[in-house]
Amino acid sequence: MRILVLGGDGYLGWPTAVHLSGAGHDVAVADNFARRSYDEELGVESLVPILTLEERIAAWKEVSGKEIKSYVGDLCDPAFVHQMVGEFHPESIVHYAEQRAAPYSMIDQAHAVYTQTNNVVGNLNVMYAIGDIDRDIHLVKLGTMGEYGTPNIDIEEGWLDVEHNGRRDRMIYPKRPGSFYHCSKVHDSTNIEFGCRIWGMRATDLNQGVVYGADVEHTKGDPRLATRFDYDGVFGTVLNRMVIQAVLGHPLTVYGNGSQTRGLINIVDTVECIRLACENPADRGEFRVFNQMTESMSIRQIAETVAKEYPGEVTIEHLPNPRVEQEDHYYNVKHSALEGLGLKPTLLSTTLIDHLFDVVERHKDRVDVQAIMPTVNWQATSSELPATARALTPMK
Amino acid sequence: MRILVLGGDGYLGWPTAVHLSGAGHDVAVADNFARRSYDEELGVESLVPILTLEERIAAWKEVSGKEIKSYVGDLCDPAFVHQMVGEFHPESIVHYAEQRAAPYSMIDQAHAVYTQTNNVVGNLNVMYAIGDIDRDIHLVKLGTMGEYGTPNIDIEEGWLDVEHNGRRDRMIYPKRPGSFYHCSKVHDSTNIEFGCRIWGMRATDLNQGVVYGADVEHTKGDPRLATRFDYDGVFGTVLNRMVIQAVLGHPLTVYGNGSQTRGLINIVDTVECIRLACENPADRGEFRVFNQMTESMSIRQIAETVAKEYPGEVTIEHLPNPRVEQEDHYYNVKHSALEGLGLKPTLLSTTLIDHLFDVVERHKDRVDVQAIMPTVNWQATSSELPATARALTPMK
Repeated sequence: MRILVLGGDGYLGWPTAVHLSGAGHDVAVADNFARRSYDEELGVESLVPILTLEERIAAWKEVSGKEIKSYVGDLCDPAFVHQMVGEFHPESIVHYAEQRAAPYSMIDQAHAVYTQTNNVVGNLNVMYAIGDIDRDIHLVKLGTMGEYGTPNIDIEEGWLDVEHNGRRDRMIYPKRPGSFYHCSKVHDSTNIEFGCRIWGMRATDLNQGVVYGADVEHTKGDPRLATRFDYDGVFGTVLNRMVIQAVLGHPLTVYGNGSQTRGLINIVDTVECIRLACENPADRGEFRVFNQMTESMSIRQIAETVAKEYPGEVTIEHLPNPRVEQEDHYYNVKHSALEGLGLKPTLLSTTLIDHLFDVVERHKDRVDVQAIMPTVNWQATSSELPATARALTPMK
Repeated sequence: MRILVLGGDGYLGWPTAVHLSGAGHDVAVADNFARRSYDEELGVESLVPILTLEERIAAWKEVSGKEIKSYVGDLCDPAFVHQMVGEFHPESIVHYAEQRAAPYSMIDQAHAVYTQTNNVVGNLNVMYAIGDIDRDIHLVKLGTMGEYGTPNIDIEEGWLDVEHNGRRDRMIYPKRPGSFYHCSKVHDSTNIEFGCRIWGMRATDLNQGVVYGADVEHTKGDPRLATRFDYDGVFGTVLNRMVIQAVLGHPLTVYGNGSQTRGLINIVDTVECIRLACENPADRGEFRVFNQMTESMSIRQIAETVAKEYPGEVTIEHLPNPRVEQEDHYYNVKHSALEGLGLKPTLLSTTLIDHLFDVVERHKDRVDVQAIMPTVNWQATSSELPATARALTPMK
């Protein structure tokens, strides 16, 4: 099937493109390299060196014999989106192409506004291209478990059967997002659900947990195919960052008491979930939501697991929580839909963590120690970034 | 109390400013005249002639002896917002300054994107100004009953007590917005509720029904103080439009079977609700939601009421519904909070409709008949506007 991966140069977009191409699909990617610009802005780099998109695509061609077409442009440019969707005419569009770091969105007013306009406008343009060109195109949209927050009831997959004063309805699950970035994903979901109603769009909204891991099957064999691995206080996700802290002999930093619990997913499951969603499209008019995660762990448990597995000495340090979030809370997430389509979860295990230690060990000379600590405070309206940051205004 | 009315040149913003000033408050208004630009774009005009903001303010000064300060600028300019809020330092900010027509947002991609960026970014900038300058400033934000859609359960005031699998939580009431405009108001609510959690903002989100009426107490006496009265297919609201159709001897146009039911509110109650919300602010950290409407009527009932009251011959015509909306549905809205603060509803009555007939009779030579019919179709990705429309790209 023809699949267009938006944000195909990113941490998950690239491995997804390779995974889908490896599975026999006809894949194109689009990117404006915004993710690489954020690195420039923040003065940080992926721990694992990555090639340019062009070089990656050429390496994949050499290794697999398969072509990946590429489009370079900004989703906020409606003409670019319309032209690309019309030309490639995909059966599925996998949409990763959004600013995806909560701390980045909380730096200051400019970053909050940039995150929301970039994400919401890009997504609206994709919706309009589908609405205009072919309403059968299936939109597979990346959202986040952070849209839900930590409600005191079970987290269902996007919809909630409500009984109230003796009457019933099936309603969108109420959201309690944890940053302006998370709010932007809620906005996208609101727009897409509306698009399904008015245009009969087919949409799958994937509320993804925190992703960890460095490789998928097809990117493992050749360093030219490697995807980025972020560990900085803005873009690094918790498990990846803690593995680096362990290898460097730094304390693992836990924000607050660490009992805040999150859904996790291994990168190998992410790419498989996307394949399953594309190959089993939503119906016409259906706004389908999957919780794309495989297990829940508290931040403290993640730290303890990393500490236990690391062969050397590891300490755990609690920092004041820079975020505003509940620390002690109920957390029970339903996530059976993707397993129903055939996902076999790859849970966090000793082997996996060992592999991550290896990856980090290989590149530890590239770590910028200054970049690891959190610098963005949720309660402030503007945060001072580390001295390595070069500019406070987001790139276009 | 010092109150800043954003969008103070608009249909409701101007009467609100005058009402608050008349009630003894120290009022400033801000506007970028976007509403007047939409008229230019669509080739239509307010039925009732209106003066410039400067002339209105001078007339009010002459009539009442009271000053209204004015700021001219765009809320999407963060420096303008920050400077204005810092200088006037209001205790309440009443925020009307958004693109407010559902059909306008549904014209095409450019108008959908314009509506959402204009509304969301403007509101974020107001939030950042409050977060930065003084978190005690009470944000009184205009939303719409159309955020809720027509759920099959009672519509509560913004929050819903949910019981699910034996556990309970108080959650944001799930929304089902009916246009990209309505979606933008849901986005705003999502952002503001988050702002209340992280910054301890005080916010009142007013989900307002369809407003009708032409005057409030202080604008009635002097034609120089009149507010706009819209009847065109894009900005005109249903009751105002039907009154014009009756006076012109045109059939009253009902979209679909007309059993779709909406919350209504008289303009005199709107301005009073705003006064009550300002004088009784939300607590620090409170996201307070009021359903700002006083009665529910189906579109057919509204048409029948207008037809019955009009002294001449009136027919009712059903048009294919250009919107995608449920026509037969449950609709039971809770709206006791504002009445709890002291609102005495002014319900739709013979006298009121008679007064509206008078207003329209006085200005009926100004009606552009071509502008009345609906031109924007929800299922299309772009709609042809009437020939009078001058440009399809929104003004900045």
